Amino acid sequence: MRCRKCGTTAVINMRHHKLALCGEHYVEWVLAQTDRAIEKYKMFTRDERVLVAVSGGKDSLALWDVLLRLGYQADGLYIGLGINDPLPYSDASLEKTRKFLEFSIQYSVFRTGDDTQHATRITHPSTPLRSAQDASRFTPTLHVIDIAQTYGKTIPEIARAKMRGQGRPCAACGLTKRYVMNRLALDKGYAVLATGHNLDDEIAVLFQNTLRWQTGYLARQAPVLPASREGLVKKVKPFCRMYERETATYALVRGIDYIYDECPHAGGNLTNFYKTLLNQLETESPGAKLSFYLEFLRARGEGAFEQFNRVEELHACEVCGQPTSAPGRCAFCRMWDVSRVVE
Amino acid sequence: MRCRKCGTTAVINMRHHKLALCGEHYVEWVLAQTDRAIEKYKMFTRDERVLVAVSGGKDSLALWDVLLRLGYQADGLYIGLGINDPLPYSDASLEKTRKFLEFSIQYSVFRTGDDTQHATRITHPSTPLRSAQDASRFTPTLHVIDIAQTYGKTIPEIARAKMRGQGRPCAACGLTKRYVMNRLALDKGYAVLATGHNLDDEIAVLFQNTLRWQTGYLARQAPVLPASREGLVKKVKPFCRMYERETATYALVRGIDYIYDECPHAGGNLTNFYKTLLNQLETESPGAKLSFYLEFLRARGEGAFEQFNRVEELHACEVCGQPTSAPGRCAFCRMWDVSRVVE
Repeated sequence: MRCRKCGTTAVINMRHHKLALCGEHYVEWVLAQTDRAIEKYKMFTRDERVLVAVSGGKDSLALWDVLLRLGYQADGLYIGLGINDPLPYSDASLEKTRKFLEFSIQYSVFRTGDDTQHATRITHPSTPLRSAQDASRFTPTLHVIDIAQTYGKTIPEIARAKMRGQGRPCAACGLTKRYVMNRLALDKGYAVLATGHNLDDEIAVLFQNTLRWQTGYLARQAPVLPASREGLVKKVKPFCRMYERETATYALVRGIDYIYDECPHAGGNLTNFYKTLLNQLETESPGAKLSFYLEFLRARGEGAFEQFNRVEELHACEVCGQPTSAPGRCAFCRMWDVSRVVE
Repeated sequence: MRCRKCGTTAVINMRHHKLALCGEHYVEWVLAQTDRAIEKYKMFTRDERVLVAVSGGKDSLALWDVLLRLGYQADGLYIGLGINDPLPYSDASLEKTRKFLEFSIQYSVFRTGDDTQHATRITHPSTPLRSAQDASRFTPTLHVIDIAQTYGKTIPEIARAKMRGQGRPCAACGLTKRYVMNRLALDKGYAVLATGHNLDDEIAVLFQNTLRWQTGYLARQAPVLPASREGLVKKVKPFCRMYERETATYALVRGIDYIYDECPHAGGNLTNFYKTLLNQLETESPGAKLSFYLEFLRARGEGAFEQFNRVEELHACEVCGQPTSAPGRCAFCRMWDVSRVVE
């Protein structure tokens, strides 16, 4: 398979786009595609400060890399969940994230537009930056919030304490991450919070919601969740049209060293089952995953679920002041038994 | 596995209903479920004449059987498609349909409410009729329309002639069947046309339409398609909530001898692929198929796709007078090159 642009050996063949590309042109393509999504869905501009939620995985590190190379003012937020049993998953993830940032700053790939790679095994020069001048004024920061240090327990510990050892800690983890991300973004004055959700993530959720026709959720699933007056920060997913395989290939081509392992608690969950089904669909009809998502966005944009989009009434949590629909304390403060604000 | 009602050996275990039943109680259950669907969706009453489209397969024969046993005035329509190569599929189907009717009349199962079975290997007595008295006044008729005799060509022949040998004859077949069913139902004054579509059929179509978010089709998918003033007969699917496995078990328990083979042109089509995917889903979460359908109907009923339900303007075909949205001749008359009405 040859690169459509230059005829050298391709690193990826995207059947759904009928497009094969070499490493250099693939990186260029990912940058252009992401920038196009950012513009199309009005996610943010180069004048705004963006907070990227980074986990140390391929999607979030690739996203941070792409945003920096595109000249966006993108800082990172790593949340230490304390998932280190049986393997030091969280510690390893933070390590990868720190290394990524170090390399990025050291080689200033996003500053100078030169062709330095995160690793050396890739030989293709990367695409030049679109606005190297703007980018050169910016050095990214990584915020690290360690849950155990801040709130006294790791995620597995709080989940055990609250759920009496039953079920996965995923619900507690999700609630905590959403809270911490929102609060830090607000406190530090970021215009927008960006997450690395890729197309496969998005359609797994879409599929789940569609199978049960959860019209309220369908009404709210979008590449952009707007900010609320009450203090919910704007949330965006610049990779929402990128196949998981594409973000993985980007990370590989760029030599980004990411954490390969899934969270040890994620195994066998329903989302992965849906992803497997959707992959069968994609194999049968290349492009089916992308069109499932894009056609949903079109139908949604045409008002298919508009009447189900009830705006929840939010007010300030009586403890932390963050927006909540619950009366009194927010779900986070209740779960963590917070009775005064933790700074 | 034991029957929930009487403790004898069960013939079916319906995980999604958490219900195992013996032959006798299963038949009773199918009758009650179907009658409930007929009432819930306001399909037809015992005072109305129903035309059942019968193919000789399990679903349509089971439906006819159920309707007769429930005391509905249900006649059958068999359309001879002329698909007899490499095997006499159509001829065998007609044969099965005729035998079914013969047995039905001979043993008057739907008249007397006795426990006669279509075959003898089943020993369970069947459920008594709900209104044997009404039913006793009715003897069902089978209408047979042979396409080649009426229009000069079999379905494979017209498909070859019109499509230059490319693709399956399924589109030509579907168009022809819809036309013939509607016309006969109208000409003979039936209140409603009933088809044997089961839940698996319905959700395969729903799934296909959902994957592409074909909002116009989604707006119109329902257990009942109302009649139009212009001459589209009301169409209903009394088995829309029955799993394929359930209609098959009903046919088996009732000893209905149906044609097992699929149409030789159906192999490997996308619908079957979707059915396989949906079955994986069902295995993972029993009841997923039923809730996909029922929750869709709920969302649709709540207006999710209402704005996409554009009422097509219909007028009479200039040749046959049947309703069409096409200008001049209808699609059927164009395909079959009809220039005067065929009686």
